[in-house]
Amino acid sequence: MVALLTLAGIPLLLAAALTGSAPGDLPAQRAMPVSNESQTCIDCHDQYTPGIVADWRSSRHAITIPGDALKNTPLQRRISADNVAPPLDSVVVGCYECHSLNVQTHADRMDHFGYAISVVVSPADCKTCHPVEAEQYAAGKKAHALDNLQKNPVYHALVETATGMRTAHGKELSRGISSNNAKNGTCYGCHGTRVEVRGTQTITTDGGDVTVPVLTNWPNQGVGRINPDGSAGSCTSCHPRHAFSIEVARTPATCGQCHLEPDIPTYNIYKESKHGNIEEALHHRWNWEAVPWTVGKDFTAPTCATCHNSLLTNPAGTVIAQRSHDFGTRTWVRLFGLIYSHPQPISGKTYELKNADGLPLPTTFSGVPATSFLIGTDEQAKRKDAMRAVCLACHSTPWVDGHFAALDTSIAEADGMVRAATQMLGAMWEQKMADRKNPFDESVEQQWVRQWLFYGNSVRYAAAMSGQDYATFKNGWWELNANLQRIHETLNAGRKK
Amino acid sequence: MVALLTLAGIPLLLAAALTGSAPGDLPAQRAMPVSNESQTCIDCHDQYTPGIVADWRSSRHAITIPGDALKNTPLQRRISADNVAPPLDSVVVGCYECHSLNVQTHADRMDHFGYAISVVVSPADCKTCHPVEAEQYAAGKKAHALDNLQKNPVYHALVETATGMRTAHGKELSRGISSNNAKNGTCYGCHGTRVEVRGTQTITTDGGDVTVPVLTNWPNQGVGRINPDGSAGSCTSCHPRHAFSIEVARTPATCGQCHLEPDIPTYNIYKESKHGNIEEALHHRWNWEAVPWTVGKDFTAPTCATCHNSLLTNPAGTVIAQRSHDFGTRTWVRLFGLIYSHPQPISGKTYELKNADGLPLPTTFSGVPATSFLIGTDEQAKRKDAMRAVCLACHSTPWVDGHFAALDTSIAEADGMVRAATQMLGAMWEQKMADRKNPFDESVEQQWVRQWLFYGNSVRYAAAMSGQDYATFKNGWWELNANLQRIHETLNAGRKK
Amino acid sequence: MVALLTLAGIPLLLAAALTGSAPGDLPAQRAMPVSNESQTCIDCHDQYTPGIVADWRSSRHAITIPGDALKNTPLQRRISADNVAPPLDSVVVGCYECHSLNVQTHADRMDHFGYAISVVVSPADCKTCHPVEAEQYAAGKKAHALDNLQKNPVYHALVETATGMRTAHGKELSRGISSNNAKNGTCYGCHGTRVEVRGTQTITTDGGDVTVPVLTNWPNQGVGRINPDGSAGSCTSCHPRHAFSIEVARTPATCGQCHLEPDIPTYNIYKESKHGNIEEALHHRWNWEAVPWTVGKDFTAPTCATCHNSLLTNPAGTVIAQRSHDFGTRTWVRLFGLIYSHPQPISGKTYELKNADGLPLPTTFSGVPATSFLIGTDEQAKRKDAMRAVCLACHSTPWVDGHFAALDTSIAEADGMVRAATQMLGAMWEQKMADRKNPFDESVEQQWVRQWLFYGNSVRYAAAMSGQDYATFKNGWWELNANLQRIHETLNAGRKK
Repeated sequence: MVALLTLAGIPLLLAAALTGSAPGDLPAQRAMPVSNESQTCIDCHDQYTPGIVADWRSSRHAITIPGDALKNTPLQRRISADNVAPPLDSVVVGCYECHSLNVQTHADRMDHFGYAISVVVSPADCKTCHPVEAEQYAAGKKAHALDNLQKNPVYHALVETATGMRTAHGKELSRGISSNNAKNGTCYGCHGTRVEVRGTQTITTDGGDVTVPVLTNWPNQGVGRINPDGSAGSCTSCHPRHAFSIEVARTPATCGQCHLEPDIPTYNIYKESKHGNIEEALHHRWNWEAVPWTVGKDFTAPTCATCHNSLLTNPAGTVIAQRSHDFGTRTWVRLFGLIYSHPQPISGKTYELKNADGLPLPTTFSGVPATSFLIGTDEQAKRKDAMRAVCLACHSTPWVDGHFAALDTSIAEADGMVRAATQMLGAMWEQKMADRKNPFDESVEQQWVRQWLFYGNSVRYAAAMSGQDYATFKNGWWELNANLQRIHETLNAGRKK
Repeated sequence: MVALLTLAGIPLLLAAALTGSAPGDLPAQRAMPVSNESQTCIDCHDQYTPGIVADWRSSRHAITIPGDALKNTPLQRRISADNVAPPLDSVVVGCYECHSLNVQTHADRMDHFGYAISVVVSPADCKTCHPVEAEQYAAGKKAHALDNLQKNPVYHALVETATGMRTAHGKELSRGISSNNAKNGTCYGCHGTRVEVRGTQTITTDGGDVTVPVLTNWPNQGVGRINPDGSAGSCTSCHPRHAFSIEVARTPATCGQCHLEPDIPTYNIYKESKHGNIEEALHHRWNWEAVPWTVGKDFTAPTCATCHNSLLTNPAGTVIAQRSHDFGTRTWVRLFGLIYSHPQPISGKTYELKNADGLPLPTTFSGVPATSFLIGTDEQAKRKDAMRAVCLACHSTPWVDGHFAALDTSIAEADGMVRAATQMLGAMWEQKMADRKNPFDESVEQQWVRQWLFYGNSVRYAAAMSGQDYATFKNGWWELNANLQRIHETLNAGRKK
Repeated sequence: MVALLTLAGIPLLLAAALTGSAPGDLPAQRAMPVSNESQTCIDCHDQYTPGIVADWRSSRHAITIPGDALKNTPLQRRISADNVAPPLDSVVVGCYECHSLNVQTHADRMDHFGYAISVVVSPADCKTCHPVEAEQYAAGKKAHALDNLQKNPVYHALVETATGMRTAHGKELSRGISSNNAKNGTCYGCHGTRVEVRGTQTITTDGGDVTVPVLTNWPNQGVGRINPDGSAGSCTSCHPRHAFSIEVARTPATCGQCHLEPDIPTYNIYKESKHGNIEEALHHRWNWEAVPWTVGKDFTAPTCATCHNSLLTNPAGTVIAQRSHDFGTRTWVRLFGLIYSHPQPISGKTYELKNADGLPLPTTFSGVPATSFLIGTDEQAKRKDAMRAVCLACHSTPWVDGHFAALDTSIAEADGMVRAATQMLGAMWEQKMADRKNPFDESVEQQWVRQWLFYGNSVRYAAAMSGQDYATFKNGWWELNANLQRIHETLNAGRKK
């Protein structure tokens, strides 16, 4: 049934780090049972894709038998299943254990040297051991990130306009389509693509011919990827294959893959903040692997994961925050202005929103929130309390309250600066100085987009995380004012430009 | 009098790093005496703010009795007091030792479960053990950073214009005020706020009701913060609570909290430079904790702190540079153009400057320096020698001289490109194409601001630290020229835009 | 002949790291033979430039006798010479061993306390032990980076226009020259300067007067520096003195010294990518020193060096990629648009290119490639295979093929967006709305430059390395479209602006 894998080949540096820092773990020195199927994969892939095999060998999966992992204390458990079926009770989590899961539901299944496996291991597969995480994720906005762009005609228009091909003919500039490729490399790079099977192809390797499914819009690791088994999401967005390292997932750069200036400058602002400053200085000293993650002991300043999703305890073992893979559960307000900040949507499917003007947006252009689609004050208070608990692990109540009061004011002020730009654009539309049909395709409209998407967001996120430059000269108040001034001067020059 | 704190709870990784790398230090294994007062704080705050307690446990303060620290050799001493009064001669630097200092001077003092403590530990308190650092800091520009904005009508106008709220009415755009909140989150985020006590508030906690002072413009950690005891500055700007780590203070990201592009791109330029490149590669190998900091042995490329303020020795123990917390003591020229580079001001209170036009600026708009307020050639030479000594620890005299000669030329050239823009703006003011009353509120004026504040600074700082991109396409010469061209075309189109 | 250097003074952290991670290395504990000449250098320079002496002590050179290094297995060898002459067979690589090489060819030679040495150790000197690397480097574009700017009239015009001094006279703006200083601090900072000897100067030191050559355009460490011995290049661009650390060279920040946004945003895009994300998280855990560099064992995500030049093996010791210091040997297409992407040039001397319009450019403005100067399909396929081999160490064939197919489409699309801008500029030139004489000096022309140099490059490099933001809002498709729209509106407003 199982082969014995001596871990002599594991990078000792990593193995030591993994085991030394994780109470209750199995010792890395012990020979771990690998299933015969996985050993067969390894025997061949050690030659064909040696990097991912070695990466897996350095992983916790390679030294963890799920059945044993169940015996950890609740706080130390890294799997949320109540029980696991054979063979997961007796072998480590190897290649075959994941790639053979639920193959009957996988359009991307294939026969691979006698084994039925699928190419794209999906959240529905990871759910076998991590059901709570999979369910939380499915409820949030990330899992619906592709639909939220494609099924919302307003955002869809922005995507198509921003990534549309154009051709010049004399003085004319015609607008072509936005290709799948352009969208996959831009918006869908983060939001996810729709991966479907379109027949098969045969690949010739040294080990013989291999027939594999042809996948559309592949490769992609966006958070809302639609997988060939119909599931949504990509755990590898944050837990990259095949080490699935929690250190990587907790590192701010992981979030920075998508949350970058100018539109979502959270990574940049974090790096400027005092929290980010401490993290940059001390990254190499912290214990990034511990579960639960203990404030002050394992780390001394929060990262993105600390505030937004990790299971945190104090040194005495008391829980400060519960783990969640629905990343909105500690955020009550959605800082990301569309075009204004607003309470978090109730559903992760934001394309279902409808505002008072009938548009699928969380607020109207004049700022009226689509209240029935947004969380109410009770839920807001609950989520704010969850975040406050994290802050209060290090800061006093007046400090935290002062910080959040300033955030509230900054949100209102940034929204006010967006409102002024929106009103001026409205005046230009009314005076036919611009055409409202497509609100994103003329220069003055694109200035307006910058106001709410770049500068408004910068000010709000900077207030949330204390990154002063991003509130000032770097896409902040300076730009909010200068951009507004340019729109104003354009409007009053009495002509479209 | 004192309780014994076994250090079993200290993160061993940190404790080992702290002690292993610091010659003459007390061994971390020893049980250290904590005052009864501080132990009382810890007993409660281990529960209420566990993060900062754990952070403190990882700190040098937690393992240092000031009285013992005095016995270190002068170069190894981390405190500059000649002697310390009881109880600092017999207990480690715990919560109460700092929060109880000079409470009679603290408007933010409070009775906290029978102890008289203050909320905001200020430079005047840290001065008890670190008097030289506090005095140096008080003399520099940082301590006056808030006044330097508020009391200078020119900079004040720039702050108000950049952060002022605006409202649209039809085609009109009225200018509202800049709120305290907007200024606190932007300019004052770095420059510091005025923290004053406005009554008290009672907070309900699990441990009972706690009455605390209400602080204005709080939280804030800006370098020129005015504290409730009247002192100026915030040591935690660079030595964040409660580890007060010298590694953090010496890490470039600490300076990057405020010194970021586009206005002060020094952190970005450092990261691009060869020095920054080496630091990024080898950060995890260096000894960031040693005092004195030994060139070549503890680190192999300079950071911001190396060049601007740390105590440096060569491996033989000879001093290369004296420590200073007046960060201008090794800089003879102020690269930051206002609007041109100029010799460093004599006083840290730059609002006292007066140029030949009667404005509180270091030069006139035509470039005449306010000489009587600026350091003379002797002092310039002295400071340049102090910086040269750092360079010469690794570089030859011709290398260093060549570098500084190029810096001088770059300064003159960047100033020349600022002068051209200023002259063109002057022409527009004269021809009523713009209104000089507020020199910051029209688009062409904002282009002019970019010329000296963004592009001129980028070129000068890039020359100082050899970050070529910041002298070229990233806010450098390319933008100096393109921006000038736009202003020129605007001027010659015969209309305001 | 030799002095014994006890390594007690070496930073143990570094020494341990160097030796612990490098199979086949000499033990650091052993006293290593230093030549008498180098010991004389050290005795004095320990006092005068202690930083570089200490840096050298931490280096592999300080613990390596080239004669012994030859005995390593071919894959583990870090020198490519077949043999070395005395004294390199019996002493470590010290100061004198490098600075005395080929002095007769060095215009920068000098008599230094009785020793004939040169100031600028050049690739021609490093070639003594590293001939293969020196020859590869000499064949590539980097070695010719200065000539490629200076001898190409088109690029020369861009350099002069971007860095030219300007002076305002009333409403006029005259164009002055670009100084050597401005070019040295910008374009030539990366491309390299021409370092020549102009007499000598005498420097007074505590150890006596020292007469040294006066070097022009110095200091500089650009990749195409012309050295006083006539050779081209600067090994210290990536292997900074005097540790010459392979860890530094392999760290992405090294490449980021020059390859930064907006013109060559590869470092920024790498940092955003999943590969860069993993590197940022795990940098401190990897083995950056090993030769060969083993996929999965020494590192778990590629850096710039991994894909473009390092010698890679799989854990079984099979070679995945051969080392090359001609950095184009694994790239078939030149993504850097001038103004369009094109196959890599055959010669590193790109100033020899001539397109169908007679210009020294790889393509015409309408997109016709200068085929006879560019590598053909066979060579393209060979290089693509070399890169694919690296990808395939971790990724499956369909993944890699899908990625490269998307890259091809993205190249074509970005080129199309450049073409539209070029056609509109052509229309403006024809209608005398702009003057084609200098294609870089008017605002609309500078907008066109941004289209291909900033935004087109961003989209192409982002496609190559999967950095979605750089393909979208950060200098990507959003800007390609918005910039085009501005040009279009300018063209159709019927006036130059």
